Amino acid sequence: MHSLQSLQKIIKEGIADLTFDKQPVELYSPINYILDLGGKRLRPVLCLLACDMFGGNISNALDPAIGIEIFHNFTLLHDDIMDQAPIRRGKSTVHEKWNPNVAILSGDTMMALSYEFIMKTPEKVRSKIFSAFNQTAIEVCEGQQYDMNFESQNDVSIANYIKMIRLKTAVLIAGSLKIGALVAEASPEDADNIYRFGENIGIAFQLKDDLLDVFSDEEKFGKQNGGDILANKKTFLYLKAFELADSKTYESLHFFFNKDFDNELEKINGVKEIYETLNIDSITSKEIEKYFNRGIKFLDKINDADDRKSELIKFADQLKKREF
Amino acid sequence: MHSLQSLQKIIKEGIADLTFDKQPVELYSPINYILDLGGKRLRPVLCLLACDMFGGNISNALDPAIGIEIFHNFTLLHDDIMDQAPIRRGKSTVHEKWNPNVAILSGDTMMALSYEFIMKTPEKVRSKIFSAFNQTAIEVCEGQQYDMNFESQNDVSIANYIKMIRLKTAVLIAGSLKIGALVAEASPEDADNIYRFGENIGIAFQLKDDLLDVFSDEEKFGKQNGGDILANKKTFLYLKAFELADSKTYESLHFFFNKDFDNELEKINGVKEIYETLNIDSITSKEIEKYFNRGIKFLDKINDADDRKSELIKFADQLKKREF
Repeated sequence: MHSLQSLQKIIKEGIADLTFDKQPVELYSPINYILDLGGKRLRPVLCLLACDMFGGNISNALDPAIGIEIFHNFTLLHDDIMDQAPIRRGKSTVHEKWNPNVAILSGDTMMALSYEFIMKTPEKVRSKIFSAFNQTAIEVCEGQQYDMNFESQNDVSIANYIKMIRLKTAVLIAGSLKIGALVAEASPEDADNIYRFGENIGIAFQLKDDLLDVFSDEEKFGKQNGGDILANKKTFLYLKAFELADSKTYESLHFFFNKDFDNELEKINGVKEIYETLNIDSITSKEIEKYFNRGIKFLDKINDADDRKSELIKFADQLKKREF
Repeated sequence: MHSLQSLQKIIKEGIADLTFDKQPVELYSPINYILDLGGKRLRPVLCLLACDMFGGNISNALDPAIGIEIFHNFTLLHDDIMDQAPIRRGKSTVHEKWNPNVAILSGDTMMALSYEFIMKTPEKVRSKIFSAFNQTAIEVCEGQQYDMNFESQNDVSIANYIKMIRLKTAVLIAGSLKIGALVAEASPEDADNIYRFGENIGIAFQLKDDLLDVFSDEEKFGKQNGGDILANKKTFLYLKAFELADSKTYESLHFFFNKDFDNELEKINGVKEIYETLNIDSITSKEIEKYFNRGIKFLDKINDADDRKSELIKFADQLKKREF
C-alpha cells in the first residue's frame, strides 16, 4: 500500500511531465500554462488513493487521474472567464494573459483532452469509468449554472446552496474517488459508498473554503480575508447570517451587502463583526463536522478494505483541518 | 438499404425528439434552442449513410449520429461567441439571446452530452468510435484556432488555408462517415478510406461555401452575397486573388480589403469585379472538382460495398452542386 505522500509525488511528477507540444501553439500554450500553475492536485490524488485502497494497480489509475485534473483545470479556465477573474493562483488568468477567445477554445480542447486520458483505462472498466466521469462533467456544469443564477437571486435557501456546491465542487471529488475504485474493480456498492463519502467530504471542503475566506490566518491562507464578502457572494456564512439575524442585524447585513465601500476593510470588518455576533464561525465549523462525519459513515460501510482506509481518512482529516 | 431521403427523415425525427427537459433551465434552454434552429443535419446523415453502406444496423448509428450533431452545434455556439456573430440561421445567437456566460456553459454541457451519445454504441466498437470522435474533436478546436490566427496574419498561404478548413470543417464530416463505418464493423482500411473520402468532400464543401458567399443566387442562397468580403475573411477566393493579381490589381484588392466603406455594396462589387477579372469563380469551381474527385477515388478503393455507394455519391454530388 502506498503512502499519501508517495501518491502525491506520483501525481506531481505525472502532471509535470505533461506538456502538450503541439500545433497551433496559440491553443496549447494556455493549456500548458494553466496546468503548470500548480494547486493541491486534490482530485487526482484522491483517485489514486481510492484505487490503492481497493487493492488496484495505481499505474492503471494514473491516466484517468490526470484526465480529472485536466478537466478540473478546464472548469477553472472557463469559470474565470465567466467571473471575469484577473488572478488564479497568484498569476494572470488565461483570458487576461491571452484573451477570452483563446480561453474559451483552450478550455474546449482541455475538455476533449481530459476524455482522452479518462479513456486510457483497461477495457474491462472503461465504459463504467466513462459513465461516472461524464455524469460528473455534466453535473459540474449544472452546478456552475446554479452558482451564476444565485448571483441575481434573492431567495437562495441553504438547501439550494448545498445542492449547488454539491454539483459544482463535491461531485468531482466524489467522481475522482469512484473512478479510482472502478479502476480497482471495486463492487458497485463500494464504488457508490466511496462516491457518497467523497460527496460529503466535498461539501465539507467547500464549506471550509467559505469559512477560511473570512476566518483565517491571512499569512497561512496566502490571501487577504473577505474576498467573498467584497464580491457579495452568497456563501454558507452569508446565508446563515441572514437566516439567523433579527430585524436590526438583518438591516445591517443588508446595508453592508448592498453598498460599495471606498474602504474595503470597512465592509469586511462590518460583516465579520456581525458574523461573530451570530456565531457563524462555530456554526459553520459544526456544519463542516456534520458533512465530514456523514462522509465517514459511508466509508465505514466498506468492509473489506478496513486496514487500507487510514490514508484516505488521514487525507480527509487534513482537508478538514487545513488553514489554507 | 435505405434511401438518402429515409435516412434524412430518421435524423430529422431523432433530433426533433431530443429535448433536454432538465434543471437548471437556464442551462438547458439554450441547448434546446440551438438544436431546434435546424440546419442541413449533414454530419449525422453521413454517419447513417456510411453505416448503411457497410451493411450495418443503422439503429446502432443513430445515437452517435445525434452525438455528432450535438457536438457540431456546440462548436457553432462557441464559434459564434468568438466571432461575436449576432445571427445564426436567421435567429439570434445564444450569446445574444442570453449572454456570453450562458453560451460558454451551455456549450460545455453540449460537449459532455455529445460524448454521452457517442458512447451509446455497441460495446464491441465503442472504444474505436470514441477514439475517432475524440481525435476529431481536438482537431476541430485546432482548426478554429488557426482560423482565428489567420485574422491577424498577413502571410496565409493557400496550403495553410486548406489545412485550416480541413481541421475546422472537413475532419468532422470525415469523422461522421468513419464512425458510421465503425458501427457497421467495417475493416480499418475501409474506415480509413471513407474517412479520406469525407476529408476531401469536406474541403470541397467548404470551398463551395466560400464560392457561394460571393457568387450565388441570393434568393436561393437565402442571404445577401459578400458577407465574407465585408468581414475581410481570408477565404480561398481572397487568397487566390492576391496570388494571381498583378501589382495594380494587388493594390486594388488591398484598397478594398483595408478600408471601411459607408456603402457596403461598393466594397462587395469592387472585390467581385476583381474576382471576375481574375476568373476566381471558375478557378474555385475547378478546385472544388479536384477535391471532389480525390474523395471519390478513396470511395473507389472500397470494394465490397460497390452496389451500396450510390446514395453516398448522390449525396456528395448534391453538396457539390448545391446553390445554398
